[in-house]
Amino acid sequence: MNKEIRIFSPGTVANVSCGFDVLGFCLDTVGDEMVVRISSEKGIRITKIEGFDLPFETHKNVAGVSAQALIADLKPDCGFEIEIYKFIKPGSGIGSSAASAAGSVFAINELMGKPYTKTELTRFAMKGEALASQSEHADNLAPALFGGFTLVKSLCPLEILKLPIPDELYATIIHPQIEIKTAEARAILPKSVPLHDAITQWSNLGSLVHALHNGDYELLQRSLHDSIVEPYRSKLIPHFEDIKLATLASGALGIGISGSGPSIFALSKGEKTAKEVEDAMRKVYTKTAIQFETYVSKINSKGIKIIEA
Amino acid sequence: MNKEIRIFSPGTVANVSCGFDVLGFCLDTVGDEMVVRISSEKGIRITKIEGFDLPFETHKNVAGVSAQALIADLKPDCGFEIEIYKFIKPGSGIGSSAASAAGSVFAINELMGKPYTKTELTRFAMKGEALASQSEHADNLAPALFGGFTLVKSLCPLEILKLPIPDELYATIIHPQIEIKTAEARAILPKSVPLHDAITQWSNLGSLVHALHNGDYELLQRSLHDSIVEPYRSKLIPHFEDIKLATLASGALGIGISGSGPSIFALSKGEKTAKEVEDAMRKVYTKTAIQFETYVSKINSKGIKIIEA
Repeated sequence: MNKEIRIFSPGTVANVSCGFDVLGFCLDTVGDEMVVRISSEKGIRITKIEGFDLPFETHKNVAGVSAQALIADLKPDCGFEIEIYKFIKPGSGIGSSAASAAGSVFAINELMGKPYTKTELTRFAMKGEALASQSEHADNLAPALFGGFTLVKSLCPLEILKLPIPDELYATIIHPQIEIKTAEARAILPKSVPLHDAITQWSNLGSLVHALHNGDYELLQRSLHDSIVEPYRSKLIPHFEDIKLATLASGALGIGISGSGPSIFALSKGEKTAKEVEDAMRKVYTKTAIQFETYVSKINSKGIKIIEA
Repeated sequence: MNKEIRIFSPGTVANVSCGFDVLGFCLDTVGDEMVVRISSEKGIRITKIEGFDLPFETHKNVAGVSAQALIADLKPDCGFEIEIYKFIKPGSGIGSSAASAAGSVFAINELMGKPYTKTELTRFAMKGEALASQSEHADNLAPALFGGFTLVKSLCPLEILKLPIPDELYATIIHPQIEIKTAEARAILPKSVPLHDAITQWSNLGSLVHALHNGDYELLQRSLHDSIVEPYRSKLIPHFEDIKLATLASGALGIGISGSGPSIFALSKGEKTAKEVEDAMRKVYTKTAIQFETYVSKINSKGIKIIEA
């Protein structure tokens, strides 16, 4: 038995603007690769990690933990070796742990003849995600596994809605190389919010879903506002307001904090605008002492992809 | 000049569940009739009111005030006589004042060759609505003028989105003949809400918009929850919880308070279920000393209709 599969497990953006805690989307040009191989020895073994320094112990590795959750349910008559080629920097805010957690269960599911739905895979992957973020959430897992834009309608029971995406939607990401502690990003959030702001937020999310269905970029632009979380969390990201001004002036439909940061995402109509937005973002950070990386990506409508089966 | 038009101006449901303050829909079997007639004498005159005791003075009548807002802009070389045949009881919570305010401007616009868009008509009608409710809002005006389900994305600038509706969607309404003072219904609302509940609310509204686009009744059912306002305002409506239990047991997709009450609406798939829901509602209130009326209506996809031109 040496059947194996090589996959591309993409980066993802969660907490998309007015869809804080529920809306995410999937990237196409930034992501990890993983090779998963059936072995006669039962259990999960991480046999190779490249790119970043992550634990090989299965129970300490998010890809290992999610894979173990799957095999605890499936009880297959074999085991799996996992190689991780990590390109998404942990802590970047574009779903590094989710790519690992989702990738391993996606690959095992493929190797075993797809016994599980994507929602079931998300549930296993949440166990891995919990190791990284101390809470079971599906914000990044859902877009990684389903592709496109996803709305996590509820966690219990887990229900994920895949929303339609217009053809020419592109994301631009800037990842300032600073550390934002998840605990701090959480602590900074208010426990309660003005009813008036909450109404604005759900009005915008309703409009955004309508805009995605209608492929209405202008409405998308008018809906991409976060009146609740951004005012708090943007303070943790140096030059956020400058980035916002420069990005919108370059034609972006809207911008927001990716996950809990520090990455910032912008959405644009067309690759040309997305690249101009990238230039505008780079100009702002080039003037600072902060290291950064940028990416431009079409919205990935498929999610995790098989490179080689 | 004796050109005239007779219209049906429908009742409407605002504050639809998770879409508090933004989402409304239009009824088809309950509404007022109005006759508007061009006269050589300039200005607006209310010449007949039947059904309920409402003021004839133009500046004290919502239909008059909205009509005056329109002619102040249009400056036509004629005036208008308005007859109001009122069937929607004022204070019922199903858009009685909105039917009057929207009806007069709709009719004048038709008579003058449609110089205004529906959004512009809504803006004029808001002046009339403000007379009735002491605040300019479009919650009931939007569904009355646009028909179907509407999302008032913003008031300033005024932006109304018309959402698609599935074919077999019916509403059942029960109107308990009690008075809820708008001021009390407002005062009972919290100024701020837990972030967790707000997230649930916008998740449900996003899902509801998705469900309307996909004609997905089951998702509609899972989305029709109001975690923010209903817990407060339902206390003002006797036996609300009994109605809710009985209604859902009869197969309704969901229920909620219509506007700020006292009417309660339920949504169902198909007329048969909507009528069973009506029976269930009637059974609950028949046991009490409270007078009530009930209605079953298909969702009205057109809004105000011309009966005779």
